Amino acid sequence: MCSLPVPQEPLRRVAVTGGTHGNEMSGVCLVQQWLRDPGELQRASFAAVPVLANPAATAACRRYVDCDLNRVFTSTLLTARAHPDDPYEVTRARELNQLLGPKASGRAFDFVLDLHNTTANMGTCLLVKTTHDIFALHMCHHLQLQNPELPFHVSLYQRPGEETYNMTSVAKNEIGLELGPQPQGVLRADLLTRMRALVAKVLDFIQLFNQGTAFPAFEMEAYRIVRSVDFPRTEAGDLAGTVHPQLQDRDFEPLRPGAPIFQMFSGEDVLYEGESTIYPIFINEAAYYEKGIAFFQTEKLTLSVPALPALAPTPTPGP
Amino acid sequence: MCSLPVPQEPLRRVAVTGGTHGNEMSGVCLVQQWLRDPGELQRASFAAVPVLANPAATAACRRYVDCDLNRVFTSTLLTARAHPDDPYEVTRARELNQLLGPKASGRAFDFVLDLHNTTANMGTCLLVKTTHDIFALHMCHHLQLQNPELPFHVSLYQRPGEETYNMTSVAKNEIGLELGPQPQGVLRADLLTRMRALVAKVLDFIQLFNQGTAFPAFEMEAYRIVRSVDFPRTEAGDLAGTVHPQLQDRDFEPLRPGAPIFQMFSGEDVLYEGESTIYPIFINEAAYYEKGIAFFQTEKLTLSVPALPALAPTPTPGP
Repeated sequence: MCSLPVPQEPLRRVAVTGGTHGNEMSGVCLVQQWLRDPGELQRASFAAVPVLANPAATAACRRYVDCDLNRVFTSTLLTARAHPDDPYEVTRARELNQLLGPKASGRAFDFVLDLHNTTANMGTCLLVKTTHDIFALHMCHHLQLQNPELPFHVSLYQRPGEETYNMTSVAKNEIGLELGPQPQGVLRADLLTRMRALVAKVLDFIQLFNQGTAFPAFEMEAYRIVRSVDFPRTEAGDLAGTVHPQLQDRDFEPLRPGAPIFQMFSGEDVLYEGESTIYPIFINEAAYYEKGIAFFQTEKLTLSVPALPALAPTPTPGP
Repeated sequence: MCSLPVPQEPLRRVAVTGGTHGNEMSGVCLVQQWLRDPGELQRASFAAVPVLANPAATAACRRYVDCDLNRVFTSTLLTARAHPDDPYEVTRARELNQLLGPKASGRAFDFVLDLHNTTANMGTCLLVKTTHDIFALHMCHHLQLQNPELPFHVSLYQRPGEETYNMTSVAKNEIGLELGPQPQGVLRADLLTRMRALVAKVLDFIQLFNQGTAFPAFEMEAYRIVRSVDFPRTEAGDLAGTVHPQLQDRDFEPLRPGAPIFQMFSGEDVLYEGESTIYPIFINEAAYYEKGIAFFQTEKLTLSVPALPALAPTPTPGP
């Protein structure tokens, strides 16, 4: 497996971001607490910085004010000349790029963990860019080992040839944490507790790595996003049906050719006509209606992840 | 039991309203379908009118644009002189009052059924104004008898001395249908199917009444809203905790003194300190955070509902 270079130095500059979408309440709530008292984010080798990514959307309890913040971290938008008419989120993305990036530069943060919720029945999902992200995959594996009771899924989100446009793409290493189901604007205690515990484990992993721990090779399952599937629509673009009851809430479960995927308002079923089994995720996510996405098709992979070598010892300062 | 006068004439002017809150998708979707093809809303003695109550909020997929439409149908606001700076929903309420009311007038619609969703685990809930609404309570009982497999709850929403401010209050008879849990902005096929079937049964009941059916006395359980309970908050008004995992999703279940109701972000539990068992509803509803409501306390009543007499036969027109 081709792999990106793994970190050769301790990760010192670490951020935990919430409120990238202002109505995903678990991350919003945790970051607001950590901004008052960041003690939980400290480890021996670093202190993670809490960042409320979209303060205006958080104040309004909306996903965004002008446009989706997590879609505008492209080189073009980040480097374009600022204009008074720029959408709020484009201006905010440039600020975050200065704070956490600049994207693809040596000055960028070593690691960003971005906290999300979904209305879909995704359980605990870790979003990793590609199969090449050895460091992130080791982190996922570590979380799985540390939480054997929790069903975990790893999803690979970057599609071939597509530029990354999400916030974490400005950092050198990154992971997204997606917990669901939780309605927008609702704060469930169970998901809040789970997210808090997972963030602690992420920071523990970085601490272990920073202090010179090596991690052996392993195999893991991952779900790679292949394409999105829109709802059935009328010629005018309105919904003509919705997710079939037999698909609803079945994120990460196999969907076989011939199985129903939509129920039309007229009563008929729409069947999945692909040739092979797929694994739908983000099924019926509220925020994706406007994006024309009823669910994402993924393919299930078994990854052979090579060992993550220990950092070379830092030379002891001379007397 | 003191009771309001029951209808003495057939109910001819009937409306089914959806999109009173623009992100409660079951009602939005059904009304949009009926506006294209109202055939489902016809019965022998009347044809119900579909009304999309808040078109601007529906287009934006938000609860409201300026203020909550379902809180502004007060006599003061409905009769005040119109002003260009009026909130969109106040203007819209006056239009709806002209269409479906005027409130408390002989010209008002005979019946309005208003369709809602909640993020709370409310199942199928019928909202009736008071114990005096004999006609509405008979309708609820009829729905229960017609759907024995469906757990049903009847909730009485008007508190003593409080003026009704919701949309249905402009009509002579009314009921609200509340289905959940469903996240805002999400259209679940199972709830859509259930709502569609319940609307049909409501119209069937009106048809039975119009054609001269008498309905015998019965007893039923109902949950009367007593007061609302806010989340724990900091001095600045921010959330300091959320609904306890042991209360979450337990709408209509008994809550006994000493049971936990909130989990503070600091980890402590907040216990229910009342003296008697209550029945919380609308637990952790997304739209109620801004209203300072974590849940409503209700008391469980057993109502003895008197018979609903058959309409006197309409005199046959002479030759």
